[in-house]
Amino acid sequence: MNEGQIQKIVIIGAGRLASHLGLSFFKQGLEIVQVYNRTPEKAGKLASRIGAACTDNIAELNLHADIYFLAVSDSVIGEIASRLRLNKKLVVHASGTMGMDVLAPISSNFGVFYPVQTFLLNRKINFRKVPICIEANSESIELKLEFLAKKLSRNVCFLNSEKRRYLHLGAVFASNFTNFLYTITEDILISNNVPLELLEPLIFQTAMNVKHGNLFQNQTGPALRGDKKVLDKHCEMLAKHPDYLEIYNLITSKIIKHKMLHGEL
Amino acid sequence: MNEGQIQKIVIIGAGRLASHLGLSFFKQGLEIVQVYNRTPEKAGKLASRIGAACTDNIAELNLHADIYFLAVSDSVIGEIASRLRLNKKLVVHASGTMGMDVLAPISSNFGVFYPVQTFLLNRKINFRKVPICIEANSESIELKLEFLAKKLSRNVCFLNSEKRRYLHLGAVFASNFTNFLYTITEDILISNNVPLELLEPLIFQTAMNVKHGNLFQNQTGPALRGDKKVLDKHCEMLAKHPDYLEIYNLITSKIIKHKMLHGEL
Repeated sequence: MNEGQIQKIVIIGAGRLASHLGLSFFKQGLEIVQVYNRTPEKAGKLASRIGAACTDNIAELNLHADIYFLAVSDSVIGEIASRLRLNKKLVVHASGTMGMDVLAPISSNFGVFYPVQTFLLNRKINFRKVPICIEANSESIELKLEFLAKKLSRNVCFLNSEKRRYLHLGAVFASNFTNFLYTITEDILISNNVPLELLEPLIFQTAMNVKHGNLFQNQTGPALRGDKKVLDKHCEMLAKHPDYLEIYNLITSKIIKHKMLHGEL
Repeated sequence: MNEGQIQKIVIIGAGRLASHLGLSFFKQGLEIVQVYNRTPEKAGKLASRIGAACTDNIAELNLHADIYFLAVSDSVIGEIASRLRLNKKLVVHASGTMGMDVLAPISSNFGVFYPVQTFLLNRKINFRKVPICIEANSESIELKLEFLAKKLSRNVCFLNSEKRRYLHLGAVFASNFTNFLYTITEDILISNNVPLELLEPLIFQTAMNVKHGNLFQNQTGPALRGDKKVLDKHCEMLAKHPDYLEIYNLITSKIIKHKMLHGEL
């Protein structure tokens, strides 16, 4: 075994990301020595699933791990960084938006370990396919993190804080906003007794088409065709849903504008 | 062979939908006797791929087919309906928004054959998984269309014009608008030298999560968390893209409102 290799992990946080990461590390034979969460029940629940000790007191953090994982929401990272001191111990966060340097007060060795995926409770994720974006404040730490990430995923890359921020912004459009459009769709269909299942193949195909790039080429529908009759009819059908109508009108107008500025193909 | 079974098909239109349908029928051993398109080159191109004759003159339509497929855009359906007279010949359209009755002037036997998918040029589609929604003005025609649809797809259902219209409206949100969000994502990433591939697993997973229903439960991200710091940072990053910023702000505000009104889970 490589002397510098990461074996012992402390996980700070016990939410969705912490749970998915903890379980995946555990399955790969890594030792999760401790789970910290300010709510003891949450810490205990995750800890018991991955053979770890647990604490709700940050002063009781196990100081003999190889890596400290801040798998908490962005606002909490700053708060913990103001209190936690780990000298030279390797500390990482898993945030898309926070820069790496927020960790500098905690230790002289720090980095980022950002899995690009949406993690839901009680849903299994195949980590082999999840891209993990790595950044570190030294080359040796970068190599350590790469080695660790490759135990979980086939898809590991280096990305600096600036690029990671844009990746995360893209993820908001491509996943958070998309899911909200799915939510609107579900509401429209259910309230008209149309099964959502009928749209699943279309939704998957639309997502699959992303593979080919040049995505405005994949644009279809009444906005692109400038089919005013259909657009008017849709507005009429959305009259009872002013919030959906606003989104419909805005995105429609932007598709029309995009076509005008950039052409259809 | 069932006496009433559809064997000979005339396709009116030669665009993306007409091509995908024509090729799929051809592969299933059905006979496409003729392709009509007002542009002779287009008619000829599709016809030559599926062993059919072709014409650009609607007065020369072959009158000995079992079914006449209007695979043209919505605006053209009405125009053709005002000119074409087929007596008792079965005529169908493939539109999500047009009611079935638009075909009544053409023939006394008519219906709808609506495949719920986005069809792109030069992209193969596995028709077995494409839901086909059927409607007809008599039960015997409905059965004929069902028999025909089942040759292409495992997923055939009956849906009246009203429900089909809502299904199509849902498809605009879940596919057209979603693809435009992907287009925005691609632009943001490419202009910052971040590979779009990094988001593919997230995009697929987000689409896959639709299977479980209750889709606002799948909502994640800064809008849902009400993470003002991240939201402000994203707005700052989008300053050079006022169109994207408008969409960002609108959808963000609607996610926040939806959570307020309906709760997170």
